[in-house]
Amino acid sequence: MSERMSQRLGPEFFASIQGGLRARLAHDGLGALLTDSPEDVAYLTGFFHHPGERPVAVWLDGDGRVVLLVPELERENAERQRAAAELVSYPEYPGVVPPFHVLAAALAPAIGLAVGHAPSMSWERLSAAREALPAAEFRATRLLVQARGIKHPDEIALHEEAARITDRMIAAGVALVAERASERGELPSEAELASHVTSVGVRTMYAEHRDVVVVSPLAGALVYTAANSAYPHGLPSGRRLQPGDTFMLSLGCAVGGRFVEGERTFVVGAPTAQQREYHDAVRAAHAAAMQATAPGIECREANARSLAVIRDAGLGGFLRHRLGHGIGLGMHEPPWLEDGDATVLEAGMVISNEPGIYVPGHAGYRISDSMLVTAEGSRALTAFPRGLDDCVIPF
Amino acid sequence: MSERMSQRLGPEFFASIQGGLRARLAHDGLGALLTDSPEDVAYLTGFFHHPGERPVAVWLDGDGRVVLLVPELERENAERQRAAAELVSYPEYPGVVPPFHVLAAALAPAIGLAVGHAPSMSWERLSAAREALPAAEFRATRLLVQARGIKHPDEIALHEEAARITDRMIAAGVALVAERASERGELPSEAELASHVTSVGVRTMYAEHRDVVVVSPLAGALVYTAANSAYPHGLPSGRRLQPGDTFMLSLGCAVGGRFVEGERTFVVGAPTAQQREYHDAVRAAHAAAMQATAPGIECREANARSLAVIRDAGLGGFLRHRLGHGIGLGMHEPPWLEDGDATVLEAGMVISNEPGIYVPGHAGYRISDSMLVTAEGSRALTAFPRGLDDCVIPF
Repeated sequence: MSERMSQRLGPEFFASIQGGLRARLAHDGLGALLTDSPEDVAYLTGFFHHPGERPVAVWLDGDGRVVLLVPELERENAERQRAAAELVSYPEYPGVVPPFHVLAAALAPAIGLAVGHAPSMSWERLSAAREALPAAEFRATRLLVQARGIKHPDEIALHEEAARITDRMIAAGVALVAERASERGELPSEAELASHVTSVGVRTMYAEHRDVVVVSPLAGALVYTAANSAYPHGLPSGRRLQPGDTFMLSLGCAVGGRFVEGERTFVVGAPTAQQREYHDAVRAAHAAAMQATAPGIECREANARSLAVIRDAGLGGFLRHRLGHGIGLGMHEPPWLEDGDATVLEAGMVISNEPGIYVPGHAGYRISDSMLVTAEGSRALTAFPRGLDDCVIPF
Repeated sequence: MSERMSQRLGPEFFASIQGGLRARLAHDGLGALLTDSPEDVAYLTGFFHHPGERPVAVWLDGDGRVVLLVPELERENAERQRAAAELVSYPEYPGVVPPFHVLAAALAPAIGLAVGHAPSMSWERLSAAREALPAAEFRATRLLVQARGIKHPDEIALHEEAARITDRMIAAGVALVAERASERGELPSEAELASHVTSVGVRTMYAEHRDVVVVSPLAGALVYTAANSAYPHGLPSGRRLQPGDTFMLSLGCAVGGRFVEGERTFVVGAPTAQQREYHDAVRAAHAAAMQATAPGIECREANARSLAVIRDAGLGGFLRHRLGHGIGLGMHEPPWLEDGDATVLEAGMVISNEPGIYVPGHAGYRISDSMLVTAEGSRALTAFPRGLDDCVIPF
């Protein structure tokens, strides 16, 4: 890369996002938006922070004001990140004058509006906002959820870069196992593999990007071997890989705060017929989901089509979770590719396609790609080969 | 340690906590409690999890039922952690039947109650609960916040152990710097120090404890040197320590999910008069707070007495934050040692005493201990020496 990529989106991006939302306010009968979701704040202003008890919130109204409320402790941080908003800060939390009262004082002319709040706001924060703006009429709005669901081209570029790095992390994990296997030495442990691929992801970003946006985690790895992989969510242990094992690399990273995940299931040495049966079934369910992920299809329908492949193979008893979820500034965000979500897929959405089966005492099998829904259908952003023959480590 | 300590609290603890809350329900006119705060869930049942979009919640009612609602994906995890509650699970999220409807079905006889909900519940989750239990009358309650604020003796034992390990982490950081300094070699970087002391904390727990409760982070370190330490919240960088630097070790860990933090400010080589002036002022403010932390004192009063020492020394312009905060299952939790919190300190509270000053372009100075309020006053759980003469690394 001759010129290092910046992870920070430019003022045009924020003008476009803020303008788009402002245009939709009136249509929804709202005069303003209020959100304290850290991901919404990053989406609207480019300011990333570690959430805590001190509220950080964005107010966006039809009059053209975008206000970022921060504790004084974060003011310099917001300035250094060139937050695309007017900064209003309160001295400390809880404060003699509560934080939302400080916001209200800065908004004095705007207090009689219908204010749409993020559905994720807590009862406590919402009560504080209502008390500070007693003339405003608050109601939940999904405007931000909907806007964030359709990715802007600048965001898609960040996702694509995160996918490139995720593929590199998977390749680095495979290379480490293959090298040890070729030496007939001790194979790496789950924790060793996790630490190796995470550091490859982070080092790649710092070497090749400018303005790295630090979110938690910048790069992450869940590595499960053999029976440990039969639990869909756990933490890497000190267990060493053994010849014959099935193992899973469940990796991902965030570029400019935009997440991607990529997951592959491998076998060390020649696969047994049973390992092949399980891997092939998940691969087929994943392929079915690639077909089903297209504009106009409901999320629940994509989920049903993919999981039906596993059920039809007689492996339905090993299912433990849905097909997938939206991904963006949130590692998990709407829509949900599950029976209970009738959201219709649209071009610009990014979702995970990650069918899996979990065979108690043996292993788990999951193949996951972050997929971009396009006008024509969809394409996987992560590209590491998926079939079992490409996922065997010779031993 | 001849017998390894278990980090998991026993059934008697949960019986005591649940019984105590049940006894207070009627007094507050409530028939039941509902919370989805991960810390409340751990407090009430011993079940620790990584929160996400799939609700995990506890229902506790006056009839003696304690129900833990989990997604099916977490059922086995809850069983392995011996959660002290009746388990009710829903298949997936969002689900054809929403999670709180699954809970409501399990509660059928109890639906006409006044239900106190945690103030931290989101608008979205609370709306889902109201819809699932339409005959219940929901209102926010601080019963759980108050209960968690006064630590049970079994919790205090966990805090004490976390303090012992935090002190060991600080000593390990100092030893690494001192060793390099004595060799006149390159001093460690912030990131190297952070990684070293974190691994000392985690290794100590796995070596000396059973049933390590994995929370995020199990042990953590913020290490700031020189001008980097002038930002109260940042992330450790690759900057190497230099002779003459002021640097800060801001460390902590969680034992059985109970957090402690310990922070000291060091100087490499002979301190200048200015370094001594800053360090002594913070040390005096910390000592004033140790005196002011006693039953019957309001949090805002303790804050005022401590910060007055810094203001009286002419250094008020370098203050960036309050004196401290409660600490427990939350790294930060009520009460707040700040001007806006009139909570009266009581025996059994654990709070941080952490006055600090931040001199732009030079360095930050902060000394922090986790303090237990006792019947007589208070005592620091962390014990590493605080004075500058004990915090100089010879060079």
